[in-house]
Amino acid sequence: MPPAGVAVTTPVFQRLCLIGAGLIGSSIARRNRERGDLAGEVVVTARSAATLARVRELGFADRVEEDAAEAVKDADGVIFCVPVGAYAGVMRHIAPHLAPGAILSDVGSTKGSVIRDLLPLCPPGVRLVPAHPMAGTEHSGPDAGFPTLFEGRYCIVTPLPNGDPQAVEKVREFWRRCGSAVESMDAATHDKVVAIVSHLPHLIAFTICGTADDLSEETRESVLKFAASGFRDFTRIASSDVAMWRDVFLNNREAVLEMLARFTEDAHAFGRAIRWGQEEFIVDRIQRGRKIRRSLIERKQA
Amino acid sequence: MPPAGVAVTTPVFQRLCLIGAGLIGSSIARRNRERGDLAGEVVVTARSAATLARVRELGFADRVEEDAAEAVKDADGVIFCVPVGAYAGVMRHIAPHLAPGAILSDVGSTKGSVIRDLLPLCPPGVRLVPAHPMAGTEHSGPDAGFPTLFEGRYCIVTPLPNGDPQAVEKVREFWRRCGSAVESMDAATHDKVVAIVSHLPHLIAFTICGTADDLSEETRESVLKFAASGFRDFTRIASSDVAMWRDVFLNNREAVLEMLARFTEDAHAFGRAIRWGQEEFIVDRIQRGRKIRRSLIERKQA
Repeated sequence: MPPAGVAVTTPVFQRLCLIGAGLIGSSIARRNRERGDLAGEVVVTARSAATLARVRELGFADRVEEDAAEAVKDADGVIFCVPVGAYAGVMRHIAPHLAPGAILSDVGSTKGSVIRDLLPLCPPGVRLVPAHPMAGTEHSGPDAGFPTLFEGRYCIVTPLPNGDPQAVEKVREFWRRCGSAVESMDAATHDKVVAIVSHLPHLIAFTICGTADDLSEETRESVLKFAASGFRDFTRIASSDVAMWRDVFLNNREAVLEMLARFTEDAHAFGRAIRWGQEEFIVDRIQRGRKIRRSLIERKQA
Repeated sequence: MPPAGVAVTTPVFQRLCLIGAGLIGSSIARRNRERGDLAGEVVVTARSAATLARVRELGFADRVEEDAAEAVKDADGVIFCVPVGAYAGVMRHIAPHLAPGAILSDVGSTKGSVIRDLLPLCPPGVRLVPAHPMAGTEHSGPDAGFPTLFEGRYCIVTPLPNGDPQAVEKVREFWRRCGSAVESMDAATHDKVVAIVSHLPHLIAFTICGTADDLSEETRESVLKFAASGFRDFTRIASSDVAMWRDVFLNNREAVLEMLARFTEDAHAFGRAIRWGQEEFIVDRIQRGRKIRRSLIERKQA
């Protein structure tokens, strides 16, 4: 029930099952604790006993279930909040227990793989509406979540071409109530866009940390000492959840490899211009960076 | 003169000539206005009439000179505060006018090139002590400076092997009074360290902005719209001064190309691991990123 003073709106779901209670899952549950308009009841399930125990202690779930098959019973909303690589295994386990008419959604950073892994196992009548809230912090686990995580952030919904419009609208409303700006896009476009705005920058950040780590002992010491803003910003990106990012790279393979190929071609061209002293090329690249930066500022994204 | 209430210390230089009045030069001049212990008199010269006029308006210089040869006359300290590519040309012009015993220093981000360009033209008795204050913002020009820019930031001094210890100590004291933590290093080590902590991250940031800009119209629109934290952080780095960065890349060529080669090899290895689904490799890279991040936090660099 919502606390006194909060307007009583019919919740989007009567019973919502969250599979996974990390940063995203626990933030959804906490938001419902605060507002009560996402779901009448929130059931949380997680794989590890430690997470389950911590979720019970933190008290943001109405019910905690060890067995995901038990957790999804009679739920009209089920949201996958685990790394995308775990989806297929979980789905095999829960599919026979999903309620007829239930809406199945998720919060993964890749969308083509989600459709690939979930759709073939969807029982008739269960409606799949993948979604990707573009929100996160450096922290993970059930302690990391907070109810305002999604406020002012985009949430991209990627409806199936023949998806049920009512189910899509329910998921959109769910994320609006989480505070997000909701956008729709097909899964293939989504995967390409996040490959360049998020997955490639993370790949680069992880890589440059490794490159620095491989330098001679003496240089590495100085690198840590003199990490100027450039390198420091890269490492901030690099401090993200291991399992989540492993699964992102493996499950958005084609788009990430395409963007990586484009990027390394461009980096080689930049290097060649440095070697041969091609000032105009270098100046052009620097100016394009500034131009994109200005576009972002105009859109209040920076 | 320092304002009332500030302890009167003998200034490091009697007459200090700043060649260039951008972010760094104007911050030095402003700091002396506030404290008076860097120089008894600050003479500023700059190439463009617009900059000279603006420096006069802003009033942080004791004297403004159009001609650099005039500006350095009788100065016991001269600091190059222009992009490193301009050093050789300026030095040819001022060298005959440098006062005997003057200390010649600079603030450039490359040090090998500075020694290469300045040392052969140094008149006998003039003492060259290159330095690199590791401080900056996204902004440039005489309006961008402020007196606390260098506070708490490293300044790396790269003394010549047979340099005058007294001159080196003067330059170190100068930067300590600017608020910097002063470190010494040979020029070659400096150039390698900044190549990985600063120049390569900037090269990458400029490049990825270009890569995004080359995408199809529709994808580019979405990129700007959904620029998540990863891409946004990269563009922040990319919004730096054009002439300065052009000169950095051209004047730290060998070290930047070496670090770029190491990095692209590592990025290709990461891409290959994604293509072939090598989970262990990917997890190892992500964990190394987190490890470096933790080291930086322990050193309070992040």
